[in-house]
Amino acid sequence: MPIETETPLLLLDRDQLDRNIQRMRETLAPFNVTFRPHVKTHKCLEVTERLFVGGKGPITVSTLREADFFFAAGFTDILYGVGIAPNKFAHAARLLEQGAELKLVLDNLESARLLADFAARSDQAFGVLLEVDCDGHRSGIPPNAPLLVEIAQLLQRSGVKVSGVMTHAGNSYDSRSIEEIEAFARRERDAIVQAAQLLRNAGFEVPMVSVGSTPTALFTHDLTGVTEVRAGVFAFFDLVMAGLGVCQVQDIAVSVLTTVIGHQPDKGWVIVDAGWMALSRDRGTAKQPVDQGYGVVCDLSGQPVGDLIVTAANQEHGIISSRSGNPEVALALPVGAQLRILPNHACATSAQHAGYHVSTEGRRLGYWPRIAGWGISL
Amino acid sequence: MPIETETPLLLLDRDQLDRNIQRMRETLAPFNVTFRPHVKTHKCLEVTERLFVGGKGPITVSTLREADFFFAAGFTDILYGVGIAPNKFAHAARLLEQGAELKLVLDNLESARLLADFAARSDQAFGVLLEVDCDGHRSGIPPNAPLLVEIAQLLQRSGVKVSGVMTHAGNSYDSRSIEEIEAFARRERDAIVQAAQLLRNAGFEVPMVSVGSTPTALFTHDLTGVTEVRAGVFAFFDLVMAGLGVCQVQDIAVSVLTTVIGHQPDKGWVIVDAGWMALSRDRGTAKQPVDQGYGVVCDLSGQPVGDLIVTAANQEHGIISSRSGNPEVALALPVGAQLRILPNHACATSAQHAGYHVSTEGRRLGYWPRIAGWGISL
Repeated sequence: MPIETETPLLLLDRDQLDRNIQRMRETLAPFNVTFRPHVKTHKCLEVTERLFVGGKGPITVSTLREADFFFAAGFTDILYGVGIAPNKFAHAARLLEQGAELKLVLDNLESARLLADFAARSDQAFGVLLEVDCDGHRSGIPPNAPLLVEIAQLLQRSGVKVSGVMTHAGNSYDSRSIEEIEAFARRERDAIVQAAQLLRNAGFEVPMVSVGSTPTALFTHDLTGVTEVRAGVFAFFDLVMAGLGVCQVQDIAVSVLTTVIGHQPDKGWVIVDAGWMALSRDRGTAKQPVDQGYGVVCDLSGQPVGDLIVTAANQEHGIISSRSGNPEVALALPVGAQLRILPNHACATSAQHAGYHVSTEGRRLGYWPRIAGWGISL
Repeated sequence: MPIETETPLLLLDRDQLDRNIQRMRETLAPFNVTFRPHVKTHKCLEVTERLFVGGKGPITVSTLREADFFFAAGFTDILYGVGIAPNKFAHAARLLEQGAELKLVLDNLESARLLADFAARSDQAFGVLLEVDCDGHRSGIPPNAPLLVEIAQLLQRSGVKVSGVMTHAGNSYDSRSIEEIEAFARRERDAIVQAAQLLRNAGFEVPMVSVGSTPTALFTHDLTGVTEVRAGVFAFFDLVMAGLGVCQVQDIAVSVLTTVIGHQPDKGWVIVDAGWMALSRDRGTAKQPVDQGYGVVCDLSGQPVGDLIVTAANQEHGIISSRSGNPEVALALPVGAQLRILPNHACATSAQHAGYHVSTEGRRLGYWPRIAGWGISL
C-alpha cells in the first residue's frame, strides 16, 4: 500500500484466508460431516465463495439481511442461527416463498406456539432446528429436557417441520488450554447427540444434528452422530483465538491499516488515526492471560513491532505504547509511518468497515464489500 | 412502533434531541463564544441542521468523509479535529479547492514540516489549529511549551496560516462529581488561553481559541479569552453522561429497539435480539460507580424496567438480567415483547447502525440516514 492510501482501512490477506480455510477443510475431512460455515464474521460474498470448492454450499447466517443477500447470490441452504422472533416471521416466509431452504432456530414453547400460529395462516413450510444448551453459554434447552419433545410435538401438529437440533459451545472461548477446548468439543457433541436421541425416541427423524464453534471444530476428535459443523471466525482468526492457542498470531488474515499522527514523548506514546471506530471497542483479550489492549501493532509486512499494543482508543485516535514500558521503539516511529493493527475480535473489527482491501502475495488485489444491518434495508 | 417492525434498530426521539440542543444553546448563550458542534456522534444531516437556528454554522468533524458530506450539504466552516496525517493532505487540498473553509489540527514539528512541504507544492491556502494538551488525555502540546511558537513559525514561513489553538478536556469523562467537571472546564479554558497568549507574545494573531467536551461545555463558568466551544454527545446523551451527572437517564435521546427471543428460567435471563452488533462493545460505564453492563433496559415508553440491564452481549444475542438478582421482572417479559436499550456511549452505539428511526410525540416521523467510513468511498 502506498503512503497516499488514506487510513484507517481494513486489510485482508487472501493467501492467509485461503490457508485458514484449507486448515478447517483438512481438519473436518476425516469426519463424515457437512460443513456449514458461518458468514457473520466476514459478511462478504467473495469470502463466502472461497469457503466452498465449487458450488455454493450450506451456510449459517446471523441476520435475515445476510440470508437475503446470500440467497440472492445463489446460496439456497441457509440456517438462521439466532432464535426467531415473531416480528421476523414474515421476512422468513418471504425467503421461503422465493425458494430459500431457510431453517429457523428456537428454544422455547412460546416461540414455537407463535410460529405454529403464524405457519397455520401461511402457505410456507417452515423448518426449525431446536437449540440445545451444551455449556450454559446463552440460549438453548438442556439436552435431556422433555421440553425438547414437547416443542417438537407442538410444531409437528402445526405442520412446522422439525429439521433437527443445533448447539454452539460458546464457552469454549473461555478455555485455558487445548485440553479444555477438547473437553468442550466432547460436551458439544455429546449434548447434541443426546438431544437428537431423545427426539428420535419420541418418533422424530432428526435429519440435522448441528454443532459448532471455531475452537471446538478445530480440536474435535469425535463427531459420531453429528451431521454438520458450523464455524465462522476461523477464516480470519484474531488475537482472542491466538490467545486460546487455536491459531498463531501470524495466522490472522485481517488487520487495520493506520498512520502515525503524533507522539507524546514523555509518556512513550505514539498516536495513530485508528481509534475504536476502526478497531471496535472489543476487548476480548482482557480476560485472557495476555491482554492485547485494542490490538497488536505490526509493520506493513505483518511482523509485530517490538512489544507495542494499542493501549487506549478514542473514536478516531489510538494510543500505542510498549507493553513493558520501553518507549524507544514506539518513539522511533515517525509521523506518517503506516502500521497494521491485529484485531482482538475479527467479527467486531470487520463490522466497523464497509469492506476489505484485499491483497495477495503483497500485491493489491481489489476491494471486497461487506453487508451490514438487519431487517428491511431503508 | 408496531410489533411487525423487525429488530434490532436504532430509535431517536426528536423531541428529546431538541431539548438537549436547547439546553446547550442556553448554557452557552451568556458567553461570547461561537458554538461549533461535533458531528461525529450522529453523522447525520438532519440532526446537524437542527443544531443551528437558521443557516449552516461551523462544525467539527472526526473524518474527512464527514467533511466531504457536510460540505456538499452546505456547511462550509469545518474543523477536522484529528491530527492530520500526510496521506490526508491531498484530500484536504481537494476540499479547500472546492471552497471549504477547512481547518486542520496538528501537534508536532514533523507534521508541520510535512504539511509545509506539501503546501509549498500546492495552490491551496491551508489553515491550522495547534492542538494543546490541557489534561494528559491523548494528543497535544503543553500550553506553555516554546514548541508551540516553533511550529507556528515553521508553518508561517511556508505560507500555512496559523488560525489558532484548540484543546479537548477528554479526561473530564473520568470525573466523579460536578465540581471535578467544573475544575476540568477551568483547566481547559486556562490552558488554551495560556497557549494563545504565548503565540500572541510571539507576534501571532490567534483568531481561533477553541475548547470543548460535553461535560466541560455544560458546566463552565468562565470562557474569557475563548472564541468557540465544541461538543458532540450532548445532542443524544448516554449512560456515561448520566453516570457523570451531566444529564439524567431520561434525557437520553437514542435507544436500541430489541425483541425478546427466549429465556433461561434457571438463571433469570431474558435473551433478546440485540447483541454487540446493535449495542456496540462499548463498556464506558464499567469504570463508573454504577456499571450499566451493555445498557439499561426500558419499556417502549422509555421507562426503565425494574433494575434490568444487558449483562452480556454476543454478536446478535443480548442477555438481560436483574442487577439485584431478582428474576421475576425479567422472566415476566414474554417472547416477542419489545424493549428499548439505552446506550453506554451514544457515539459507539449509533455507529453500529445505518440510520435513525425517528419519532416525535410518540409518532413515527421517518428515517434519518448516517454516514460512515473515512477516506475515499469505494
